Amino acid sequence: MRKGVRNPDKDRQIVEHELQESGYSPESEKATNKHVEEEEEEDEEEESVEKIFESREVPSWKKQLTLRAFVVSFMLSILFSFIVMKLNLTTGIIPSLNVSAGLLGFFFVKTWTKVLYKSGYLKQPFTRQENTVIQTCVVASSGIAFSGGFGTYLFGMSERIAKQSGDASRGFKDPSLGWIIGFLFVVSFLGLFSVVPLRKIMVIDFKLTYPSGTATAHLINSFHTPQGAKLAKKQVRMLGRFFSLSFLWSFFQWFFTGGDNCGFSNFPTFGLKAYQYKFYFDFSATYVGVGMICPYIINISVLLGGILSWGIMWPLIETKKGDWFPADVESSSMHGLQAYKVFIAVAIILGDGLYNFCKVLSRTLSGLFVQLRGTTTTRTSFTTQEEDPTGSPFTPKQSYDDQRRTRFFLKDQIPTWFAIGGYITIAATSTAILPHMFHQLRWYYILVIYICAPVLAFCNAYGAGLTDWSLASTYGKLAIFTIGAWAGSEHGGMLAGLAACGVMMNIVSTASDLTQDFKTGYLTLSSPKSMFISQVIGTAMGCVVSPCVFWLFYNAFDDLGLPNSEYPAPFATVYRSMAKLGVEGVASLPRECLVLCYAFFGVAILVNIVKDSLASKWGRFVPLPMAMAIPFFLGPYFAIDMCVGSLVLFVWERVDAAKAGAFGTAVASGLICGDGIWSLPSSVLAIAGVNPPVCMKFLSAATNSKVDKFLHGP
Amino acid sequence: MRKGVRNPDKDRQIVEHELQESGYSPESEKATNKHVEEEEEEDEEEESVEKIFESREVPSWKKQLTLRAFVVSFMLSILFSFIVMKLNLTTGIIPSLNVSAGLLGFFFVKTWTKVLYKSGYLKQPFTRQENTVIQTCVVASSGIAFSGGFGTYLFGMSERIAKQSGDASRGFKDPSLGWIIGFLFVVSFLGLFSVVPLRKIMVIDFKLTYPSGTATAHLINSFHTPQGAKLAKKQVRMLGRFFSLSFLWSFFQWFFTGGDNCGFSNFPTFGLKAYQYKFYFDFSATYVGVGMICPYIINISVLLGGILSWGIMWPLIETKKGDWFPADVESSSMHGLQAYKVFIAVAIILGDGLYNFCKVLSRTLSGLFVQLRGTTTTRTSFTTQEEDPTGSPFTPKQSYDDQRRTRFFLKDQIPTWFAIGGYITIAATSTAILPHMFHQLRWYYILVIYICAPVLAFCNAYGAGLTDWSLASTYGKLAIFTIGAWAGSEHGGMLAGLAACGVMMNIVSTASDLTQDFKTGYLTLSSPKSMFISQVIGTAMGCVVSPCVFWLFYNAFDDLGLPNSEYPAPFATVYRSMAKLGVEGVASLPRECLVLCYAFFGVAILVNIVKDSLASKWGRFVPLPMAMAIPFFLGPYFAIDMCVGSLVLFVWERVDAAKAGAFGTAVASGLICGDGIWSLPSSVLAIAGVNPPVCMKFLSAATNSKVDKFLHGP
Repeated sequence: MRKGVRNPDKDRQIVEHELQESGYSPESEKATNKHVEEEEEEDEEEESVEKIFESREVPSWKKQLTLRAFVVSFMLSILFSFIVMKLNLTTGIIPSLNVSAGLLGFFFVKTWTKVLYKSGYLKQPFTRQENTVIQTCVVASSGIAFSGGFGTYLFGMSERIAKQSGDASRGFKDPSLGWIIGFLFVVSFLGLFSVVPLRKIMVIDFKLTYPSGTATAHLINSFHTPQGAKLAKKQVRMLGRFFSLSFLWSFFQWFFTGGDNCGFSNFPTFGLKAYQYKFYFDFSATYVGVGMICPYIINISVLLGGILSWGIMWPLIETKKGDWFPADVESSSMHGLQAYKVFIAVAIILGDGLYNFCKVLSRTLSGLFVQLRGTTTTRTSFTTQEEDPTGSPFTPKQSYDDQRRTRFFLKDQIPTWFAIGGYITIAATSTAILPHMFHQLRWYYILVIYICAPVLAFCNAYGAGLTDWSLASTYGKLAIFTIGAWAGSEHGGMLAGLAACGVMMNIVSTASDLTQDFKTGYLTLSSPKSMFISQVIGTAMGCVVSPCVFWLFYNAFDDLGLPNSEYPAPFATVYRSMAKLGVEGVASLPRECLVLCYAFFGVAILVNIVKDSLASKWGRFVPLPMAMAIPFFLGPYFAIDMCVGSLVLFVWERVDAAKAGAFGTAVASGLICGDGIWSLPSSVLAIAGVNPPVCMKFLSAATNSKVDKFLHGP
Repeated sequence: MRKGVRNPDKDRQIVEHELQESGYSPESEKATNKHVEEEEEEDEEEESVEKIFESREVPSWKKQLTLRAFVVSFMLSILFSFIVMKLNLTTGIIPSLNVSAGLLGFFFVKTWTKVLYKSGYLKQPFTRQENTVIQTCVVASSGIAFSGGFGTYLFGMSERIAKQSGDASRGFKDPSLGWIIGFLFVVSFLGLFSVVPLRKIMVIDFKLTYPSGTATAHLINSFHTPQGAKLAKKQVRMLGRFFSLSFLWSFFQWFFTGGDNCGFSNFPTFGLKAYQYKFYFDFSATYVGVGMICPYIINISVLLGGILSWGIMWPLIETKKGDWFPADVESSSMHGLQAYKVFIAVAIILGDGLYNFCKVLSRTLSGLFVQLRGTTTTRTSFTTQEEDPTGSPFTPKQSYDDQRRTRFFLKDQIPTWFAIGGYITIAATSTAILPHMFHQLRWYYILVIYICAPVLAFCNAYGAGLTDWSLASTYGKLAIFTIGAWAGSEHGGMLAGLAACGVMMNIVSTASDLTQDFKTGYLTLSSPKSMFISQVIGTAMGCVVSPCVFWLFYNAFDDLGLPNSEYPAPFATVYRSMAKLGVEGVASLPRECLVLCYAFFGVAILVNIVKDSLASKWGRFVPLPMAMAIPFFLGPYFAIDMCVGSLVLFVWERVDAAKAGAFGTAVASGLICGDGIWSLPSSVLAIAGVNPPVCMKFLSAATNSKVDKFLHGP
């Protein structure tokens, strides 16, 4: 690999889009970029990575798939499912966790092999191919926690969300472990088969970048070179330290949450008035960590969005109570202020989504056009056509690395008949089964989806390769609107739309994930076969683990999905509202809400245009509409956490840039993982009926004196 | 100065005694020792300190007393008065603040002179003599905050404490700004005059060590060498950073204290049951800082004392309710559990005090005897007689440093007639005025005190020079018992005793302070004249500033002095109880209390004997009875803070010993000063009637659900 492969600025911007999509997809992030940059600097000295690894034997694809790898993957996939689920159900902002997956996978297997080595039982050394297998499997598994829609379409079908949106009459389907697992198994494997035949075109012929796939590969390569392992060990130690801290902190917090609105997560840091408008620091280690991983501009966008909505707009709209909307509705009713919150956020998300969909599609098509027109002279023409050289990871001259990697990549073939046969078999099964699960979802809707799907899956995989941005949730929204409108309001169009969203999202999301993994495999000399099998196993794990984790949350927290609760699952309401909008139009909204929605839809597109038309020097200071939309609904408290994370990282970078670069991600991952894994014992405690003993309550001085009189007599 | 001047282990042990005496006297501390050790290491390379300073002109004594020095001293004395007052009124544990005084004095004047230098107005450079003047002045001034007895005898006279002790009928005198200032002016200057004639004997002939005076001198010398200034600047920056942090933290905490038992200082960190027995971490930056400065053994002693009393003894005695003491008394009544808490603490303090008084007195006398027997062959014989070479700071050969220092020390003389005349004049005035303030205090009591005082003042100054331990409060207790018994219960013996304690304490405490400062002056070539004048000015400042600060607290916090309040002023009750004991004997105590008192009195002496008879290797692991006694009365919560401080320092020392050594004290001072200075705005806010807006309340889950029903309806 040579330096200058990627334009970091470009990547950064794209990463932001990725994150603001609020969808998980285990691709690039600022932090991994750092690793790549580090690695790239090293590379300058040591021209060829594969020359260093030359002496190490590459195991056959069967030997890459070890039992220990899958045991570790299973453990990690439970960990990451908890984390992703928690994030799904709190804000829906999910940072990339594949650095953590890579780190922890390395750590566990390394420890394991070290123990075995010392006791003399080690048969097979730990290779980077095995590490890639673990990473792929974990990412596939925890990817299901996102694409399963537990925070979005799937939970949006439930009665609880339906009641909140005030349209329970239009049909609901409450989650239950059985049908969720079945549904996931039926829809999650199609995506894998759809891109298998295209892997050579994507990775070798088109030479697509897949920035995060590349980053992960670099990380894994660096772990397995002797110096790299040292850094990895230090990083793991740092991660472990902050993991424990964060876990203990969450544990400590738990004791003081014995009642509603108790505990640190309701700490009115800036006073009670600010707390009322959700301006407070809620002491969440997770979101401080997320803030450390997310680029500054995302955190600032989220904060700006929070200030704009909860600081200015909602207080203003509240004064119109009784005029714009009835004064006697409950605060959570969709006929009151809540409608503005949800639909303005939806408008921004749709506006931003539409813009970026067009942008990526046009680039995909133009890129494809160039590729197909002249595959022989590809690179130069491609580079000149594109505004930046993201599409051209290699110089024309085939380097030693390229040759060796290509050879290994082409060695193990997955037959095309297998892929096509698999796709057709699964599609047929799925078409037969799904209508029995959702009777609103006719078999011909599904058939249409499955006919279009391979094209969309290819588009998404290609777009992700170019821009590192998976559009899975946007394709899902497309399905909501088209299938919803086709089915119509009378025939349960809302549920049909939401279910179709699930079918679509799973295909396109797994497709781009797998292609990403093929790229990682290519760069680590892992066999495409082992990548495919690992992804299949990981997906199967995810189809079981994710629903179980969700089920735990669902049973442990009675107020799951309610606004103001610990787990508001904001996107469930948003997705249901989109389905409603698709089915019945915009007539039912309160006054002026539609005007505001149009305005914000337009503004979202406009801001994107401004951002892209400015040079990246200024454009990177323009906030991201999608990121701004999230606090419109939730309130700015998590934005404050994230900005604290940013601040910590900022100060750290100023004080000791080298350390911050090397350990920032490890610290952030530790914070996120520790808090995330606490969800496990905390939900077990809640199910077991063990309540926290103390309530840390915040009362105004006046209320407090009333309470004191009540408790101790006057 | 040469290496090996002092035996650090010995010092450390003595420091502990100093601190456990719970009395402020600005002498040695673990932290300053560190500075000395550093300095000593430097000295190994650069044999003579004065050779380095040779080129710098020593200003005349008049030029050492600059206006800027006193302006800075005044500001710092307000700061330190607040800190000492806060410590007086919370636990009575007061660490040495003279490192902070030295650091901040250096910082302020250095900034000032730098600004002047840049603008071209600088007439006089900043010298170490001037720095010594500031340090002396600040220490003298804030010393009054301790010896003024605002947390002990003086506040013990008040009606509030009298009512708590259940003996308001035996007389009380409420504090008032007027008489306190008058009283302090009348009694505080005598000590200064009593030791002036003896300065040459103490410093040059006896060559007493005065460990903390020496340490401070080293610190100041090191600041004024070019390399030293760099370290000092870094230390000041560190101090400033933690000062701001600690101040902001206190400020933040304030917002959540809108009601009784609200806020972080009532955080049931270990649960509500533990909180009930005062086991909790109260988030006080002050005591974390104090814990960082105090030796580990003190912190552990305090914690052990807390566990013994509140963890074991009080719960056990509580079960005897209705048997040993009436069941229907209030919890704060001296006829209930409170009596055990106070009198067992008093017994331990008296036992420890008695043992150490005898120990220091015997050493003082034996030291004096040796000195007087053979002044010409002093040093060697002295060293062999003493078990450690603390008394011999110099080798027989008069070094260059010694010669130069002695020359400067003897240059400016304070005439003996002036000292004696001053003493007699002030004593006469005082004898005439005091009986008008306290009509229970007859003029002949005062006369007797003033006749004995010079001897006791000399003893204390000599003892402090040998052992670094000021016995001021022990001499005070002596006065309580003797004068109290002499006056008798019918003639207001309690008030007479407490007032006599004040007279005595002020004399002996200022005497040892001034001698200490003479030593500092000797080592920094500062003139004894300027030291004396600086101390007089500082004392005068203290006589005005301290009462004003106390007055602010007294008016701002209505519950000052009540147990369980923010400022329980524990020693006020203890001192009053001692006076009661002295006047009327032990008959009024509840059942078995006397037996327990005798037992603990004996145990305190025994533990001391064991500690001293074991070699310092094992003896340093024996806890200190005096330190253990404090939580008997107050509860172990502040012990937990202190142990947190210890833990922080311990970990820091393990991770980076060099940095911990260089900056530990600065961080601790920052924490203490920041929290301390917040007392100023907080009391101003309280007086202005601005109440904190929020109450952070801790309720059990059951109580919380009751309160929620009360607030929101069932």
